[in-house]
Amino acid sequence: MTRFDFSIHARDGRARTGTIHMMRGEIRTPAFMPVGTAATVKAMKPADVRATGADIILGNTYHLMLRPGDERMARLGGLHRFMGWDRPILTDSGGYQVMSLSDLTKVTEEGVRFASHLDGSRHLLTPERSMEIQRNLGSDIVMAFDECTAFPAPHGVAAKSMEMSMRWAKRSRDGFDGHEHAGRAALFGIQQGSMFEDLRRASSQALTEIGFDGYAIGGLAVGEGQPQMFEVLDYAPGLLPEDRPRYLMGVGKPDDIVGAVERGIDMFDCVLPTRSGRNGQAFTHDGPINLRNARFAEDTGPLDPDCACAVCHGWSRAYIHHLIRSGEILGAMLMTEHNLSFYQQLMAGLRQAIAEGRLEAFARAFVGRYRKEG
Amino acid sequence: MTRFDFSIHARDGRARTGTIHMMRGEIRTPAFMPVGTAATVKAMKPADVRATGADIILGNTYHLMLRPGDERMARLGGLHRFMGWDRPILTDSGGYQVMSLSDLTKVTEEGVRFASHLDGSRHLLTPERSMEIQRNLGSDIVMAFDECTAFPAPHGVAAKSMEMSMRWAKRSRDGFDGHEHAGRAALFGIQQGSMFEDLRRASSQALTEIGFDGYAIGGLAVGEGQPQMFEVLDYAPGLLPEDRPRYLMGVGKPDDIVGAVERGIDMFDCVLPTRSGRNGQAFTHDGPINLRNARFAEDTGPLDPDCACAVCHGWSRAYIHHLIRSGEILGAMLMTEHNLSFYQQLMAGLRQAIAEGRLEAFARAFVGRYRKEG
Ligand SMILES: [Zn+2]
Ligand SMILES: [Zn+2]
Repeated sequence: MTRFDFSIHARDGRARTGTIHMMRGEIRTPAFMPVGTAATVKAMKPADVRATGADIILGNTYHLMLRPGDERMARLGGLHRFMGWDRPILTDSGGYQVMSLSDLTKVTEEGVRFASHLDGSRHLLTPERSMEIQRNLGSDIVMAFDECTAFPAPHGVAAKSMEMSMRWAKRSRDGFDGHEHAGRAALFGIQQGSMFEDLRRASSQALTEIGFDGYAIGGLAVGEGQPQMFEVLDYAPGLLPEDRPRYLMGVGKPDDIVGAVERGIDMFDCVLPTRSGRNGQAFTHDGPINLRNARFAEDTGPLDPDCACAVCHGWSRAYIHHLIRSGEILGAMLMTEHNLSFYQQLMAGLRQAIAEGRLEAFARAFVGRYRKEG
Repeated sequence: MTRFDFSIHARDGRARTGTIHMMRGEIRTPAFMPVGTAATVKAMKPADVRATGADIILGNTYHLMLRPGDERMARLGGLHRFMGWDRPILTDSGGYQVMSLSDLTKVTEEGVRFASHLDGSRHLLTPERSMEIQRNLGSDIVMAFDECTAFPAPHGVAAKSMEMSMRWAKRSRDGFDGHEHAGRAALFGIQQGSMFEDLRRASSQALTEIGFDGYAIGGLAVGEGQPQMFEVLDYAPGLLPEDRPRYLMGVGKPDDIVGAVERGIDMFDCVLPTRSGRNGQAFTHDGPINLRNARFAEDTGPLDPDCACAVCHGWSRAYIHHLIRSGEILGAMLMTEHNLSFYQQLMAGLRQAIAEGRLEAFARAFVGRYRKEG
């Protein structure tokens, strides 16, 4: 069986559509990966996640190393069996979340020392330990351990941070290789360099010299805003190997995704559809709406009249408004299912538009309607 | 189509198994009705509730009159369409919950004045208003408005309370009749009388003279304990018409249900499987277990090895332990689904045992194993 193979079926401008072949299944690109932080895509059963159109989900190394613990997970047969998802799982390296969630963090060349946000226990996360954790989880796509450079960063700071991440990338490669797991899984490197083209170029060169199955663009979606993100995406994907998948980490809003796909990105993950869904925000073709709003109390229409999901065919805005206002779990369930379905329908639309050479028209129509004031 | 018909297929001692025929579907008895307080069986989609084996669910008049409001519900097409459940729904009268949940309650012959627990708004609930609300909801089985006598109550207090409930039962009958809805729905009376046989006898006689489609036994499961409840159930069902369904309100634990079925009860409702499921308690053939317990952290077995539900076939105790400990919504979803399935499997087992004339052996085996110390 194929460990990892990426075939591009069609191109449209800088955009591409293709398929990643892995032992646990195929991933259609451009792909959106729902986030399953703590071994669950919140408020969704795995079969329902799959039914929205997801080919792959993301798991968080930081959360899982703390609870239930990666060694326990290994004893229980790995993350797939634990949570009942048998398709590919990408795990992040823990590097981003350890900095944003844990306490008393101290970064050295060795790695990151920190205290758990759950119980204060002390841990050390290094490239080698991150590879070990992701191996214990049984991840299909392992991410190199890196430092997500804070934004904004002066050139000198961004350079030093990126250079350390490149040394960590090499240590990640070495920590990943030589285990039986490496025969089944893929390893992705992560381009850093903040908003500086010369640094992103140097980072790409360092990563390419090490060699990875795919390449992520890190250090974006950190508060810089869409215009500056797109400015970086105008050159950053082109610095990476053309024949390998490019993954934009932590992005994003629907219109972010459309613009990034136009700029050559193949993979995305974001907590937005799940997290904002639980908070009452539904994504629609006419932009986001907040179901807490009293104007939906007697609205018998679906969340989005142009959505093909089961939620939009089964329940009204009035009902979901009632559930959200009442703090009912079913509200979180239905909102999450719709939002994930909406994202997957967007990805399917993008793939088809690329295949048919009409991405620009698709993007203009989607974004125009999405951003239009109601 | 049949508005309401109850046919008894088999008897075993005082127990019976049969079918209630209604326009929206059949109800196999003995039946367990999951509680859908706020227009949702918490953490479950309607199709998944149905898949556990439920023929009918219960809705709460008190909650729904306050939010979203019964008039709004009528404008939205009724409770069935609102929540997406097309089978029968029984609604309680609001009498019990107004006393236990609202503030500043004042009971007079007219009804109950109270302040909403949600926003302090003032309301008056009377037999006539309760009928109007249940009609606005589009209920299939409407419950007469009564006072649930507090426990313990001296004979004189219980008598006065029961007598008022019987006058309210007549007003409920009058308020229910004469509307188009009465041609589609059924009305149940509620026997009161606390722990006193003479009062329960008088109550039954009053109800039978008014005439109802079915009869509930109220005022039990209010803290009296199983021995005293069974003492009342040794005579109370026999005071009610033999050819009408008998509904024991708010009961109960699995072994309560078994004992009540042996004593001639046909219908049950209880929040226990749903509420305790969300809190981490799973019902099993070997008694309840609490999934928060650390001993389940690496237990790869199912919640109950003898349960046929999808949860027990898909996920381990270790995984559900992790979800509950992590406060994950999926934990509430899986626990609820298993517990409701467990209850419905028990009801199916009881129905089959009655049909085959071996209820006593079934009950002895079930209760013996359920209560045995682990
Ligand atoms: Zn939808
Ligand atoms: Zn089960």
